[in-house]
Amino acid sequence: MSRVYNFSAGPAVLPEEVLLQARDEMLNWHGCGMSVMEMSHRGKEFISIAEEAEADLRELMAIPDNYKVMFLQGGASSQFAAIPMNLLRGKQAADYLSTGSWSKKAVSEAKRFCEVNVAASTDGCNFTTAPAQADLKLNPDAAYVHYTPNETIQGVEFPYIPETGDVPLVADMSSAILSRPVDVSKFGMIYAGAQKNIGPAGLTVVILREDLIGETIPGTPTMFNYATMSEGGSMYNTPPTYGWYFAGLVFKWLKRKGGLRAMEEVNERKAAKLYAQIDGSEFYSNPVTPTSRSWMNVPFILANKELDASFLSQAKDAGLVTLKGHRSVGGMRASIYNAMPEQGVEALIDFMVDFEKRNG
Amino acid sequence: MSRVYNFSAGPAVLPEEVLLQARDEMLNWHGCGMSVMEMSHRGKEFISIAEEAEADLRELMAIPDNYKVMFLQGGASSQFAAIPMNLLRGKQAADYLSTGSWSKKAVSEAKRFCEVNVAASTDGCNFTTAPAQADLKLNPDAAYVHYTPNETIQGVEFPYIPETGDVPLVADMSSAILSRPVDVSKFGMIYAGAQKNIGPAGLTVVILREDLIGETIPGTPTMFNYATMSEGGSMYNTPPTYGWYFAGLVFKWLKRKGGLRAMEEVNERKAAKLYAQIDGSEFYSNPVTPTSRSWMNVPFILANKELDASFLSQAKDAGLVTLKGHRSVGGMRASIYNAMPEQGVEALIDFMVDFEKRNG
Repeated sequence: MSRVYNFSAGPAVLPEEVLLQARDEMLNWHGCGMSVMEMSHRGKEFISIAEEAEADLRELMAIPDNYKVMFLQGGASSQFAAIPMNLLRGKQAADYLSTGSWSKKAVSEAKRFCEVNVAASTDGCNFTTAPAQADLKLNPDAAYVHYTPNETIQGVEFPYIPETGDVPLVADMSSAILSRPVDVSKFGMIYAGAQKNIGPAGLTVVILREDLIGETIPGTPTMFNYATMSEGGSMYNTPPTYGWYFAGLVFKWLKRKGGLRAMEEVNERKAAKLYAQIDGSEFYSNPVTPTSRSWMNVPFILANKELDASFLSQAKDAGLVTLKGHRSVGGMRASIYNAMPEQGVEALIDFMVDFEKRNG
Repeated sequence: MSRVYNFSAGPAVLPEEVLLQARDEMLNWHGCGMSVMEMSHRGKEFISIAEEAEADLRELMAIPDNYKVMFLQGGASSQFAAIPMNLLRGKQAADYLSTGSWSKKAVSEAKRFCEVNVAASTDGCNFTTAPAQADLKLNPDAAYVHYTPNETIQGVEFPYIPETGDVPLVADMSSAILSRPVDVSKFGMIYAGAQKNIGPAGLTVVILREDLIGETIPGTPTMFNYATMSEGGSMYNTPPTYGWYFAGLVFKWLKRKGGLRAMEEVNERKAAKLYAQIDGSEFYSNPVTPTSRSWMNVPFILANKELDASFLSQAKDAGLVTLKGHRSVGGMRASIYNAMPEQGVEALIDFMVDFEKRNG
């Protein structure tokens, strides 16, 4: 089988031209006689790779100078603990917006380290919408406000950045980072597991306003201390060098593609086409409020769930894979990150139309 | 430049035939149409890769059935905290053997979570030997005994496995794992960062006796909880999938090479040749007690340290790279892990002989 269209929620499709470049450089990076995987992280070759990746990410996201960028391990799940450990700064409580499976996980880990005020929850409507700004019950004394701009499992995306006054806003942007421009200065911290829109699993990018770095609660592992990790340029210990390199290749690819403004246009168009197909049919449906629909993760269900298995197996035969919805939601889910070409979305739509004709 | 002989202490040289295989499979693993990096960690393709890697490691190391094997993130540095968090099991104190830079780091992190009894320290002799069994001041009530069988920076290796009675023995085997057979049943836990003898940085292998799993101290992050990580088959969150895959390729390579008994023979021979060259010369020296010398990391100093820079630059011109010693030790260090071919060691020796002739 040649390359497929892979709609996995993560680890997810990567740009083919980046994979080709990584393949060609595998045994000998830029004539240095080593694979990137074999380089000392303190050698000049890897330092140049690391610095260039950071510079490109700063340029793509227009990250202000008073923010540190870290390339860490442990996934967003490690950040769920590291955030209260580092950002309470003497306070007792933090606000959390609970809008889907991932923000719920962030809440339950944070509860182990601080008082959590759930300032909004859409659990009552089965996480099918983002709460309105007016409905956020924010505590002005909170250490920070945590939210998940895009919920990978439910396919819900905030259509706005919450206004939190002087309280730092912390965003788990794992499944939306780099999908469109964001004003980084509105955030105290942005973090993202790489395995959706950045690169391979095992790398976590953290973008953190410098004035928030410094204090930790007792018992914080050194590896979770943002001061230690940022002072060492993410090299307190050996960083995930190959993931960092690969992320750098993806950042270069994004720049060649025209940056985040260009990605925004393509992503909006890809999502609009797919939702239009779903909404225009009686056979497919998506339960999310139209204004809160994710551009990255599009869950949809079939009118008759007994057809799920044949949908999946016929899709696979057509070269469209990893479309099964998360077990907590059911049905299908098409994740259409930056690296999913527009033709992949069109191929999925064509298949959906055809499948409906034969089974509708 | 074609491929060099890379003596980096880690990330380190990888087997060329494994790099070739990874290169050839980069865009399309076994005809599935995806890169391994793009696979959902819960899909059948990646599950087969993960299971096969674990089975091969179990076979190579003859890991008994009552041990869990985990594929984690965060490096040995994360384990320095996770070990007391998980293995105190109601006790207050643990024994640590302090025999070099890495065991010292383990001690200082452990002190943040428990009472540390340094049961032996070779600091007084500048970490140039391993302590004798008779000199270990072990506490029979310790929760565990932690040691570092091979110190990457000082090049000191224990010529024996410490006898600790009923107290579980915990070993940071980052720079010695898979270099020769070990009797796993003598250990409560073995752990290793992958970037020396296993694969790319960003993966940590933990081998843990099941009866030690269960309790954690308050404030242990979920990601550091061995019960959570082992129950989920290292998939509580997204694991470092590409590193896991690559480790699996290295395990297969080791099996093709004849397993750890065969590696032991080659490694012993490689190290013996290099130490013989050092000892046979007035120009090079190594300060470590002969019986405690590392097979993996061979530090050596030049009689005249003003020649260090020209040694390094001429070695590089000869295709021998990353030979600079750690800043805390000075001089040179040749790391000669499993993936360093015997010809690489011979090329280094030839260069050393020639350099001495020209400068001695």
